[in-house]
Amino acid sequence: MSERFFITAAPQAGRAVLVGDEARHLVRVLRARVGDAVSIFDGSGREWPARVAAIGRDEVALAAGAPLPPAPLPARPLTLAVALPKGERQKWMVEKLTELGVARLVPIETARGVAEATPAAIERLARGVIEACKQCGRTTLMEIAAPRSIPALLAAAEAAEIIVADPGGAPLAVPRAGGEPGGVLALVGPEGGFTPEELAAAVGAGAVRVALGPHILRVETAAIALAARLASSS
Amino acid sequence: MSERFFITAAPQAGRAVLVGDEARHLVRVLRARVGDAVSIFDGSGREWPARVAAIGRDEVALAAGAPLPPAPLPARPLTLAVALPKGERQKWMVEKLTELGVARLVPIETARGVAEATPAAIERLARGVIEACKQCGRTTLMEIAAPRSIPALLAAAEAAEIIVADPGGAPLAVPRAGGEPGGVLALVGPEGGFTPEELAAAVGAGAVRVALGPHILRVETAAIALAARLASSS
Repeated sequence: MSERFFITAAPQAGRAVLVGDEARHLVRVLRARVGDAVSIFDGSGREWPARVAAIGRDEVALAAGAPLPPAPLPARPLTLAVALPKGERQKWMVEKLTELGVARLVPIETARGVAEATPAAIERLARGVIEACKQCGRTTLMEIAAPRSIPALLAAAEAAEIIVADPGGAPLAVPRAGGEPGGVLALVGPEGGFTPEELAAAVGAGAVRVALGPHILRVETAAIALAARLASSS
Repeated sequence: MSERFFITAAPQAGRAVLVGDEARHLVRVLRARVGDAVSIFDGSGREWPARVAAIGRDEVALAAGAPLPPAPLPARPLTLAVALPKGERQKWMVEKLTELGVARLVPIETARGVAEATPAAIERLARGVIEACKQCGRTTLMEIAAPRSIPALLAAAEAAEIIVADPGGAPLAVPRAGGEPGGVLALVGPEGGFTPEELAAAVGAGAVRVALGPHILRVETAAIALAARLASSS
């Protein structure tokens, strides 16, 4: 597989343009020359083989070939709603969730949460998704949704199945009974846990409480464990 | 749960001693006083409630109570044999594998490996295991085994089931057919993959090739995904 680059707009008439970090990486780090082969993807599931056509000061023009067949979408897309951990743990979590095929990450506002999903944080996470996609061969971006409260999340949930990580729950059954198609929504609370009210709201909306083993998992560990068990099996 | 501390020797006649980092953390960071309650564990599965009895210059004497009932050991202990990733990724992986209940981590020497498991690296990883155990409530340390070659690993393997992560394998079935008791050994290669010879050696020793989803996982992601799917279900 040739080096992969993210494009913000699909090729038009076989022409595509790399800008910003992507262009700088290709030209300054990889020292690309006209005619070099690359792969480009726009985050919608499509990918194209391409060649460097022209190298400008801040952008690179590419000649794109025919699109590759798109990767199949998961039958049961997984949305993870997570009380974000801090700093590096946030970044790490996003990399892993992207690699493991999570469809969407929703930062949730909780009483005991430790990190705020500011617009700058969301922007940083979205950049992390692109980096991870480039590295792992994923062609559809993991969506980083706008942060929301648990009631707002649950009110808008369209998932066929809702799960909430809770040490008091039952072990997660995989594959799950029923198995009807539709997405899965899994909630992971902050280090201090959901409040009883938050847990009750989730259960009231139909969420099943699941425990993830005998130890107290960090937020990002619980999220990654759910992704490993639910995203790749869907 | 009170703050947890690691002791290198089990209490004798109800007396235990904290030394080194553990003593410094209790005294200088937590500013403990005589009489304060803590929990202590020796990494063998045992844990004791204790009280600070005396604070010395470089150590803390503790009065230990009756041991707590030990946590049950997993029916199918998981050994992960991994071509270590570099730096921070190594550290991160050990934290997550400890939280997820992996019994043993064996660094393996591979043709395309990027990090050497030097004695200093092993020491650092072992320290990471203790830190993670303190945080997640685990009472039995994850063993960091001496590094070894794949042939040496396979020759000494006593696991009932051997798995090798390989993009060309079949999806991992959980729970696995058979389900007889005994441990599971799972091999994870370096970023560049196992060589055909390394893969053949594993398969020749009875390993089943398993794929972990459609994307190219980083070493630590593959290890954590296997831990999430095999350690907590055992």
